[in-house]
This record gives sequence, C-alpha cells and structure tokens, in this order.
Amino acid sequence: MPDVSRSVQSGDYETAVSAGDHLDVRIWLRLLTCTNMIEGRVRRNLREDFEFTLPRFDLLAQLDRAETGLTMGELSRRLMVSNGNVTGLIDRLVGEGLVARKPAPADRRAHLVTLTAAGRKSFDAMWPQHQRWINAMLDGLDRTEMEALFALLGRLKQSLADAEGDGASTRRGEK
Amino acid sequence: MPDVSRSVQSGDYETAVSAGDHLDVRIWLRLLTCTNMIEGRVRRNLREDFEFTLPRFDLLAQLDRAETGLTMGELSRRLMVSNGNVTGLIDRLVGEGLVARKPAPADRRAHLVTLTAAGRKSFDAMWPQHQRWINAMLDGLDRTEMEALFALLGRLKQSLADAEGDGASTRRGEK
Repeated sequence: MPDVSRSVQSGDYETAVSAGDHLDVRIWLRLLTCTNMIEGRVRRNLREDFEFTLPRFDLLAQLDRAETGLTMGELSRRLMVSNGNVTGLIDRLVGEGLVARKPAPADRRAHLVTLTAAGRKSFDAMWPQHQRWINAMLDGLDRTEMEALFALLGRLKQSLADAEGDGASTRRGEK
Repeated sequence: MPDVSRSVQSGDYETAVSAGDHLDVRIWLRLLTCTNMIEGRVRRNLREDFEFTLPRFDLLAQLDRAETGLTMGELSRRLMVSNGNVTGLIDRLVGEGLVARKPAPADRRAHLVTLTAAGRKSFDAMWPQHQRWINAMLDGLDRTEMEALFALLGRLKQSLADAEGDGASTRRGEK
C-alpha cells in the first residue's frame, strides 16, 4: 500500500488558492492540477519505456479506434489541436511508416489517415501499458468514487458545452 | 437558459472510447476533455479581451498571491512547467515592466520575482473577468454537485500523489 501521508509535490496550481476564491475557481485549479499530474506521468513513461511522445501516442490512439481512417479535420477536432499541428505530426508519422495518408473514396480531394501494420504493432505494444499506468494512478479511488467522479465530470462536460453554445452571454458573464 | 440539447463539439478525446475501455481510462479521457475545453475558452477570452496569453496570466496569478515574491524554482513547480520555460516567460514580462526580478534577501545568488504596480494593475483588470468566465462555464452544476466534484477531485489528487511516491510499482502496474 502506498503511504498516504507522503507528498511528492512542493507546489502546484492549487498552492496559491486563497480563502476568498470561489468554489468554481477552486474546482478548475484542482481539475487542472490533476490533469497535469496524469499527463506528466504518461508523458514521462511513454518517453522512458517507448521513446514515444504523448501527441504521437494520442494520434495513434484515435486512429486505432477508427476502422476506416479519419480525415485531418476529424483528427484535429478529436485531439482538440489546430489543423497545422496535426499536419506536422502526420507528416512525421508517415515518414516513419506508422500511418498512411490516402485519398478518401467519397472525395478524392480529402485525405484519410489510417494506421499501417507497423503503426498498429507499435500502438498495441503501448496501449496495455498505458492502461496499467492509469489504473495504478487511480488506485486510491474505490468503484463507487470512480462512478461518482465519472458522472460528475459528465455533468461538467455538459455544462461546458452549454456555455460554449451560449457563447455571447458567457463572454459577458451573464446568467 | 442554455439549450441543453445543443452540442458544439463534433468530437473530442472521448469520441473514440470503446465499450472495452475500463472506467479509469474513461475518467481520464473525460477529465482531459473538460480541462481542454475550459483552458481553450480561457485562452481565447484572454487573447480576445486582453491580448494576453494564458501562460503569462497563470504566472501573474501566482505572483499575485505571493506577497514577498517567488523564486524561479517555486514558480516552475507551481506552474508545473520547466525552469527554462519560466525563465523565458519572466524575461519577457520583465521587459514589459509587468514583473521585477531582484536578489533574494536570504541568498543573493537567488532571485525573487514580484509583480510591479503595472503588473498588478494588469492582473487586477483580468482576474474578475476570469472568475466570471469560470463561473459561467460551471453554471450547469448546482452547489451539491460542485462540492461533490471538488471532494472527489481531492481524492483523485491524493491518489495521484501516492502513485508518484510509489513510483517503482506504478511503473510496473503492480498493486
């Protein structure tokens, strides 16, 4: 069992929270801290165990679940990054033979990106390890807590989508 | 009231979740999606309303709450970025007169970074708006849900800190 009293962090986004901060801001800073902690660990493990970067892994993960491939636009939306970033990443992965780019059957001006056999092999070696890392990091939560957290993050995601749809009033901070 | 059926996203990290994915991996992808959505909105609003970047805002926010200033090392830990990144950021903010760097009283080889009057004025103009943006984004959650989410994210953060402290077994995925 890990020693629950041990703290490896001497500071994070939450350190500067003051008593006057509202709960919503505190939730955001804690959410950001958790995301950075998980992302940092996955990033380091991928580099040390597989000499692979996180953006490349994320891209292979999306392609792994898309049987017929994805367009650049779909990849860009799913990875929540700019088209330009995705294009550069794809170029390098094509150069290494891990993904392939081919004209889309429906529209030859569009391109579909797919995993090559080498790309699938590479991803299949990393994915089970990735699951083990996440599993170990969330080990301190029991099943009830995990289900509650998943549901509340679903509520948060819906609230965020609604606020984006309601963009003008969000910008003015109106309710 | 926002239209809850409206969805502005045609895809995100969660789109590719498959039935075989474990709950812990699904929590992670949902957490990452929520963080990216909030961060993206704050980043765009800062740029459009204040012509300011998110890393600069985050740095001013840390300094705002540190009365006597912070060392580069402390800033780097709290912002969870490398020392090199912080140094470049500070250099530019010093150049613009928003922060100052001076020798630390206790150790003249170390430097303390503080907000200048101009930096404080700039931050004080942005902070209330930032709070409004976060408030509007979390508007879909009631007080009970917010408290539950904050507590569960606290449990998650503790689990992540424990897993980091227990690094060797985390790497091997052992329990």
